Amino acid sequence: MQMKTVKELADHVGGRVVGDAAVAITAASTLDKAGPGQITFLSNPKYASRVEATQAAAVLVATPVKTSAVQIVAEDPYYAFMQVVVLLHGHREHPAVGVSAKAEIAASARLGEGTQVGAFVSIGENVVVGANCYFYPGVFVGPNVEIGDGCIFYPNAAIYDGCRIGDRVIVQSNASVGQDGFGFATHKGEHHKIPQIGRVVLEDDVEIGAGSAIERGTLDDTVIGKGSKIGDAVAVGHGAKIGPHCLLVPQVGIAGSVILGHHCVLGGQAGVVGHIRIGNMVRIAAQAGVINDVPDGAMLAGAPAVDGSKAKRAYSLIEYLPEMKKKIKALERKVEKLGDRDAT
Amino acid sequence: MQMKTVKELADHVGGRVVGDAAVAITAASTLDKAGPGQITFLSNPKYASRVEATQAAAVLVATPVKTSAVQIVAEDPYYAFMQVVVLLHGHREHPAVGVSAKAEIAASARLGEGTQVGAFVSIGENVVVGANCYFYPGVFVGPNVEIGDGCIFYPNAAIYDGCRIGDRVIVQSNASVGQDGFGFATHKGEHHKIPQIGRVVLEDDVEIGAGSAIERGTLDDTVIGKGSKIGDAVAVGHGAKIGPHCLLVPQVGIAGSVILGHHCVLGGQAGVVGHIRIGNMVRIAAQAGVINDVPDGAMLAGAPAVDGSKAKRAYSLIEYLPEMKKKIKALERKVEKLGDRDAT
Amino acid sequence: MQMKTVKELADHVGGRVVGDAAVAITAASTLDKAGPGQITFLSNPKYASRVEATQAAAVLVATPVKTSAVQIVAEDPYYAFMQVVVLLHGHREHPAVGVSAKAEIAASARLGEGTQVGAFVSIGENVVVGANCYFYPGVFVGPNVEIGDGCIFYPNAAIYDGCRIGDRVIVQSNASVGQDGFGFATHKGEHHKIPQIGRVVLEDDVEIGAGSAIERGTLDDTVIGKGSKIGDAVAVGHGAKIGPHCLLVPQVGIAGSVILGHHCVLGGQAGVVGHIRIGNMVRIAAQAGVINDVPDGAMLAGAPAVDGSKAKRAYSLIEYLPEMKKKIKALERKVEKLGDRDAT
Repeated sequence: MQMKTVKELADHVGGRVVGDAAVAITAASTLDKAGPGQITFLSNPKYASRVEATQAAAVLVATPVKTSAVQIVAEDPYYAFMQVVVLLHGHREHPAVGVSAKAEIAASARLGEGTQVGAFVSIGENVVVGANCYFYPGVFVGPNVEIGDGCIFYPNAAIYDGCRIGDRVIVQSNASVGQDGFGFATHKGEHHKIPQIGRVVLEDDVEIGAGSAIERGTLDDTVIGKGSKIGDAVAVGHGAKIGPHCLLVPQVGIAGSVILGHHCVLGGQAGVVGHIRIGNMVRIAAQAGVINDVPDGAMLAGAPAVDGSKAKRAYSLIEYLPEMKKKIKALERKVEKLGDRDAT
Repeated sequence: MQMKTVKELADHVGGRVVGDAAVAITAASTLDKAGPGQITFLSNPKYASRVEATQAAAVLVATPVKTSAVQIVAEDPYYAFMQVVVLLHGHREHPAVGVSAKAEIAASARLGEGTQVGAFVSIGENVVVGANCYFYPGVFVGPNVEIGDGCIFYPNAAIYDGCRIGDRVIVQSNASVGQDGFGFATHKGEHHKIPQIGRVVLEDDVEIGAGSAIERGTLDDTVIGKGSKIGDAVAVGHGAKIGPHCLLVPQVGIAGSVILGHHCVLGGQAGVVGHIRIGNMVRIAAQAGVINDVPDGAMLAGAPAVDGSKAKRAYSLIEYLPEMKKKIKALERKVEKLGDRDAT
Repeated sequence: MQMKTVKELADHVGGRVVGDAAVAITAASTLDKAGPGQITFLSNPKYASRVEATQAAAVLVATPVKTSAVQIVAEDPYYAFMQVVVLLHGHREHPAVGVSAKAEIAASARLGEGTQVGAFVSIGENVVVGANCYFYPGVFVGPNVEIGDGCIFYPNAAIYDGCRIGDRVIVQSNASVGQDGFGFATHKGEHHKIPQIGRVVLEDDVEIGAGSAIERGTLDDTVIGKGSKIGDAVAVGHGAKIGPHCLLVPQVGIAGSVILGHHCVLGGQAGVVGHIRIGNMVRIAAQAGVINDVPDGAMLAGAPAVDGSKAKRAYSLIEYLPEMKKKIKALERKVEKLGDRDAT
């Protein structure tokens, strides 16, 4: 743990201090739990009242608010907070293991400088790994995989043969990358496996969550674009192309051959059917079911997914269907009566 | 396999025998499949007629029913059945392996008496493990983890650094505990990883299902309360607090910072959005989507989730929407006609 | 990579050539990406226009179409394409490892001829494995498991004690087979684990996807029928019986004791509640929620699932609920007015 003054933190994030810049900070915490020596942040104005009550020594804000804490005013307080957390706490330090004698590394595999390999790791023939990568115990890397610099593979992650992995990629524990796509030719009632000759390509700065499963392509590659982050227990189908800088929250499912643009965000458990094209900067709500092409910038919710601005109101009316049904029946009776009178 | 008389079983569960208490029982089975020498149970009165037809030698019931089987009358027949299954069949016996020479155990790790460690297990620096734990092959335990007594870790489970695990905790195969929360600060279109400095705390008697993924907290801990049972392929987000004695059925998704009370039950594939508070003894149906705070004792269903007593009827009416639309159109025509006549 | 003439390929699949049968083919590809030396296929008439534009050297079709490519006319072009991909590219070749000295194999385990075992694999007491199986690194096989011939277990798959696995079964990475069913007897607010004494039976030609979790049965076996293919991140509950030749697409959830017939297809993220019976040749759409028994041949969609022919129209009307509500209100006003006039 580091100790920094508010001034040092403000300088680090390019912010302006309101209050005593000499206050010492040793840790980051939440608005509700931060106490003396701790810094927190306000990015959602909704929580402004909680800043007034915070016990934190310092708070990162976009504009000064009423609070007894010292304030660091920064343009993007959440981004500034990230920088502060990195400075005070750092990212996880990996145990220094060198290249473990208990790993199984093929003679033809090449490991870059500074790359460390834990016990019980398997690295196959013709694998090429860049510099400063880290392999936790139990990781499997199949033959002919290429990996860039600065990647981290957490315990028991499996990377199948031939996949391509860029720089600074992170694969969390028990994730699978490059397993066979779910592709079968059904003939006379039996499902025949189609060799999956595509690969998985994880571009630079991608992260794959724990237990997630990224299928290799049947004929062409499955691609996760630069900087995209995939949560836990996500399934991506064969040949899907996820554009750069997307966020796929845990348990999302993307079927085969989907094309997703850049900067899309998919909420938890959302699903996308196969062979559709989703534009750029699309936002899809949790549990949504997307079944048609989606234009750039759209916001969708519901299953089936509809325009997000309508969806909330529309789906919330499902609850009132029994009432609506009753009203329609009552109207039918009244109208019939009125018609009868008219007819007399 | 054990052999017990009906009398011995009745004594074991505190029940009363109706019929021949000397009948010998060697196994437990289902109502439909149980035969001679076997015991079954009736806990749902809906299946009473099947007891009449059962070929079982004995049956556990809450009140005597019409059947040729010997009956053991017990207050809670399903609980009594559990006791009988434990007595007759026992829990899984783990192969005696001692501490395998093929495990990788850090010099500073401490293992309690009777703890066994299988091959290819990694236990990191400063890990403290209590007595009588069992580590199946391929399990990973990161540095500074603390584990209580009597825990079982099944093959290839991964426990990240610093997590806290109570007594009698079970983690099934390929589960991940303590991987990084899905936390990024998005700045100028790029997602920057926020160090996740919280931990995961699994309290006593927790079970985590196969392939499940429990994220560590960003700033404070993710907690699974005492006695809570998590099914397979469940995802729990960073900083969520699951109260004691909850049941989260397979494929449930809990987003970050959710607070769940005690004795809640979530059905399969149900999802809970982030930052909401769910009371105690809440029941949430399968596939429900919970998007707002929920009071104690509520029962919810549907996506979006509504009161469970209304949900079934309301959601079942979706099927009739085309008909309702037609009726509204017909009413509009008739009313217009009536208006025209009126106007003449 | 192989080189074959169109004639050789046509002979291999029993097809008829339209065009130059001497053209050389070295690879299979998609309609859009195939180029010189490559073969593609047309199975969905919807894409016929793309065949006209294809740069492929050859194309497999059901009936001749307008195209500059050489055509192979075959009864089932997708099945023929599968045969061609196998011929040209083959299935994955596994590294020759023999039986690794770094595996942990119990003295009482028996391995058939040609079976290979990678590093860090654990095979328990009394396991019987047939001929020509392949175990990738990190696989766990518990005591008393029986495995047939020609099976493949990918990295870190876990097979619990006592399971039965047929011939030519494939288990992808990080999948769990035979972990404890989610079965607890709740008594006085605490959940007591019921020993799960059933097994998992995977019949011949089954495939289990990456990260999937197949629970063992509480009292009787969980069964995946011959030729059924299970996608990634699928959860199958204790005691479920999946019939032969089913397809369960990624993230499907099947609760305990469900009985599924043969040749059923379940779309991604579909869920089935416990203890129901689904007939043969049933098709269930993605994200559907099945809560009742389903007859043979049915097609269902929606949550709750309804007849598929109605579901699309019905669910698409949810979007118009606000409008319908408005119309009902307007009708009520008009009818009231008409009633008032009538009354005067």
